[in-house]
Amino acid sequence: MSVSEYFPIYSKLDPKDQEKLSQLASLRKVSQGTIVHSGGSDCLGLLVIRSGQLRAYISSDEGREVTIYRLFERDICLFAASCIMQNIQFDITISAEKETEFWIIPPNYYKELMARDLEVAKYTNDLMATRFTELMWLVEQIMWKSFDKRLAKFLLDEYYLEGEPETLKITHEIIAGHLGTAREVVTRMLKYFQNEGMVKLTRGSIAIVDEVRLSDLAED
Amino acid sequence: MSVSEYFPIYSKLDPKDQEKLSQLASLRKVSQGTIVHSGGSDCLGLLVIRSGQLRAYISSDEGREVTIYRLFERDICLFAASCIMQNIQFDITISAEKETEFWIIPPNYYKELMARDLEVAKYTNDLMATRFTELMWLVEQIMWKSFDKRLAKFLLDEYYLEGEPETLKITHEIIAGHLGTAREVVTRMLKYFQNEGMVKLTRGSIAIVDEVRLSDLAED
Repeated sequence: MSVSEYFPIYSKLDPKDQEKLSQLASLRKVSQGTIVHSGGSDCLGLLVIRSGQLRAYISSDEGREVTIYRLFERDICLFAASCIMQNIQFDITISAEKETEFWIIPPNYYKELMARDLEVAKYTNDLMATRFTELMWLVEQIMWKSFDKRLAKFLLDEYYLEGEPETLKITHEIIAGHLGTAREVVTRMLKYFQNEGMVKLTRGSIAIVDEVRLSDLAED
Repeated sequence: MSVSEYFPIYSKLDPKDQEKLSQLASLRKVSQGTIVHSGGSDCLGLLVIRSGQLRAYISSDEGREVTIYRLFERDICLFAASCIMQNIQFDITISAEKETEFWIIPPNYYKELMARDLEVAKYTNDLMATRFTELMWLVEQIMWKSFDKRLAKFLLDEYYLEGEPETLKITHEIIAGHLGTAREVVTRMLKYFQNEGMVKLTRGSIAIVDEVRLSDLAED
């Protein structure tokens, strides 16, 4: 498996660029917990995910976090290469939630390619539009959705993502970091969910007991 | 004054497209309060602002609002033409905060142009990156900044935008709609600001009394 099979518009590049891209793209494997990219000045390159799971998030000065998006197999990450576009000016951190393999396309090469290849420019537009839509969704969630609904949605997403396990191995601290709130707020709401019979809490893990009700709550 | 002087990459288009763009762009004048664009299915076109002030915002089912960005002279608005990009999927409303004049570039033509002209594709990328950065800033404000700081910043922005008038003519309701909160929350905080000697409230207007302290608060 090479980057040619994972980079969506590879077949639209001219043969010289196909060759160059394959040469320049370097495969990297990182273990769970690795910080792949951090802050606005770091400019690693365009990431093409081969396997695993990355998380992009922002942090406050006080160390609070909120997840902006996640990346899975075949996803492309534009924001670890903020230097390719001068108008991208924000600090984002990208970390590995699982062992992850990805190709890195060097930022200078991608920038040059985008400046002369219409297909690459159009593709980058589509990528950005997708992320913009996701970010708008997040704003709406934060602004209008009550925390119980956001937590229910998060738990269900995790549950499906992990293949519906008997228990989710996740701490209240980590959930708080995804949703941009304090650990205490998560603990309080999870206890409420438990009292309502929707989840069962044990140390460091959460069992989904009533998927239907959680789902109703999330979609309200 | 024609659209050629306001569309930033006009000079980079080939002569045929310059002519066609000038022909197709229609100038429109709307009065204060006009809803220019509403919802995800509406696809007016690319807006090129000649004069005035537009506001792009999202609304909740319950009618709460939050301002996403504002547009002034020479700004370009991409999101009244969501149909030009399939990956843009969110509902935004654009209204005129002042009497506003803008050109409308038809979405089909812009889409076609973007699909074949590298300069247009690159320019659209830059536009989107700028909006994305603004949206990230908004997320950070909402997540990490306390409401007093956001309100202080908003009042100062309005004050400078209006040319430092003796009083700002703005209701608590409208401020609430910009900041995504309830009117009562705005009123409470404004009264606190007044008690602290930073503003002076009269019916329907707010005088900035202590610009320096407001500014310190906003930038904290």
